[in-house]
Amino acid sequence: MAQGPTITTIAQRAGVSIASVSRVLNGLPTRQDTVSKVMAAAEELGYVRNAVARSLKSSRTHQVAFAMADVGNPAYLAMLREIQPVLKAAGYRLVLHSTGADVADEIDVLHSLGERYVDGLIMVPLRVTEAHLRMLAGARAPVVVIGSVPEGTPVDNVRADSRTGVRLALDHLHTLGRRRVGLVNGPPDTVPGAARGAGYREALEALGLPYDEELVEIGDFYRADGRRAVAALLDRRPDIDALMCANDLIALGALDVLRAAGRRVPQDVAVVGMDDTDLAAASWPSLTSVSLGSAERGRTAAELLLDRLQDGDVTPRLVTVPPRLVVRASTAGEQAPPSGDADRLGAGGGAA
Amino acid sequence: MAQGPTITTIAQRAGVSIASVSRVLNGLPTRQDTVSKVMAAAEELGYVRNAVARSLKSSRTHQVAFAMADVGNPAYLAMLREIQPVLKAAGYRLVLHSTGADVADEIDVLHSLGERYVDGLIMVPLRVTEAHLRMLAGARAPVVVIGSVPEGTPVDNVRADSRTGVRLALDHLHTLGRRRVGLVNGPPDTVPGAARGAGYREALEALGLPYDEELVEIGDFYRADGRRAVAALLDRRPDIDALMCANDLIALGALDVLRAAGRRVPQDVAVVGMDDTDLAAASWPSLTSVSLGSAERGRTAAELLLDRLQDGDVTPRLVTVPPRLVVRASTAGEQAPPSGDADRLGAGGGAA
Repeated sequence: MAQGPTITTIAQRAGVSIASVSRVLNGLPTRQDTVSKVMAAAEELGYVRNAVARSLKSSRTHQVAFAMADVGNPAYLAMLREIQPVLKAAGYRLVLHSTGADVADEIDVLHSLGERYVDGLIMVPLRVTEAHLRMLAGARAPVVVIGSVPEGTPVDNVRADSRTGVRLALDHLHTLGRRRVGLVNGPPDTVPGAARGAGYREALEALGLPYDEELVEIGDFYRADGRRAVAALLDRRPDIDALMCANDLIALGALDVLRAAGRRVPQDVAVVGMDDTDLAAASWPSLTSVSLGSAERGRTAAELLLDRLQDGDVTPRLVTVPPRLVVRASTAGEQAPPSGDADRLGAGGGAA
Repeated sequence: MAQGPTITTIAQRAGVSIASVSRVLNGLPTRQDTVSKVMAAAEELGYVRNAVARSLKSSRTHQVAFAMADVGNPAYLAMLREIQPVLKAAGYRLVLHSTGADVADEIDVLHSLGERYVDGLIMVPLRVTEAHLRMLAGARAPVVVIGSVPEGTPVDNVRADSRTGVRLALDHLHTLGRRRVGLVNGPPDTVPGAARGAGYREALEALGLPYDEELVEIGDFYRADGRRAVAALLDRRPDIDALMCANDLIALGALDVLRAAGRRVPQDVAVVGMDDTDLAAASWPSLTSVSLGSAERGRTAAELLLDRLQDGDVTPRLVTVPPRLVVRASTAGEQAPPSGDADRLGAGGGAA
């Protein structure tokens, strides 16, 4: 089925942002030259009559909800940082739901769409249950899911790819000559734990290295788990020369234990984290980490939702954001200059 | 029983339709001059205290807004983490405004209270201008300001006390025998910069130490500023034995430069940060830092607002949250066990 022009195609044609197109089509104050470009592009693409009419007919709230487990989690925060300005530029207020890792609470959020207090929802479910799928199928407003939903679920979907991310890290460690790479993983019955475990096995196979279960240690996703796991690994396999950690907190725990044990990082043991949080640049040595593109996933989700708010008939879309390895001192060498990444955390002002 | 004023008598007195009175009393969008007429008439008729309050209560949106400059700033994030669950437990949704350090945008948020899309607002203004004070005086919904407002401003007010915070840090350093304590501050024309500078001078005086301007270096609030400033200080005063940094990012920059210069922390130079962000526990050595109680300020603000939503007649209240020194390895010694504080950042899950 040929897809009609969307807010995205108009933005491309007009050479302006998606947010600008949304503003113009919603009749919000916008620079005159932007208005002209958007209207011209919309007309060329045969879009203007429908979308504007639809927009005028609707009784919108100009609010969009973002639901995630915990705003203290840096991955969700990175999403929020990107979602908020995209929505704001398009004239939408952001309603924030922190579900506290409670599936029933997530279902509640989906259910409450029936109250029509928002025009749409971006959600990051912890896991996708049958109840989620029923609610998503009957959702009373457009929903974008950041995470993975089964094919055929009628929502837009933005995914990370931590499996490939682990492969990037193991390729890097292999290039550096490391051959005994431990994995410190979270629970294998969680989606992130399973994906990281699968990526580790795949990477070893591709590199022609054997899978050795003595090199794998399981805990939870916290710093203390990292300490416990790495202490156990060092005890069992003192010849280990690198550690792939399932997130940055685990990797910080690994650094703690290696330092206490007198192992130099990266000379004796190289360490890689995952998520590329602000902690990675703050630690010493600064931490090589696999970015799963949280910021880009947030931005993409917001753009997909704005798009759908313009045209609800678009076929559900799937966007996978590729991972990226951010190399810092914990693998690249002692003399690497300190990274300035943490600078983006901004001033500690706002308090007298 | 004498009958009190009714919607009909208010409409007659105000010279508007009964429908308009109903709209106003139900908090629905209405022209500003109509709102003024209805409210005036209701007050003259002795209606406002009881019935209007009741009516406004019944037509609540069950939404509360939180407005701050940048959700990426860890101090605001710490507030948000506390505000959100308090509001949620009371049945309120949170609408998030990130004003991007723009005063006009803050004024807009105050202005939009007239649209009655929220029942109340918690805001952290960058600075309080005349325009802020005018809008706060006429705010159409209860507002709690985190920051400092002049006495007599009709809003609840929650403050930090970084001045006392600097004194706590200098007392601690003095106890450890440090006598040449540098100050790395932000711009003195900002509220945080001025307060930290004043706290530094006061603390020196109380400790009987001279103020030496060679020990003070000014930059902005970022890590790179910390590096520049500390390099300059070490150059000018190689005998320096401690550094008070105006926030944690500056302190991370200080650690970078001290490490590169071969100065041991804390044996040669002790370092104290401010804000007690998650970065403090992630750094190595972990960073002693002055907590300005961001979490407690957020929680207090939410509680004050809920209180006022129950009873709008409470006299405006001022709460000052005391600072607290969190001692870690950057002053307390090399062998201090790594802190587990960063653990509260949670799992890096939520991403496959």
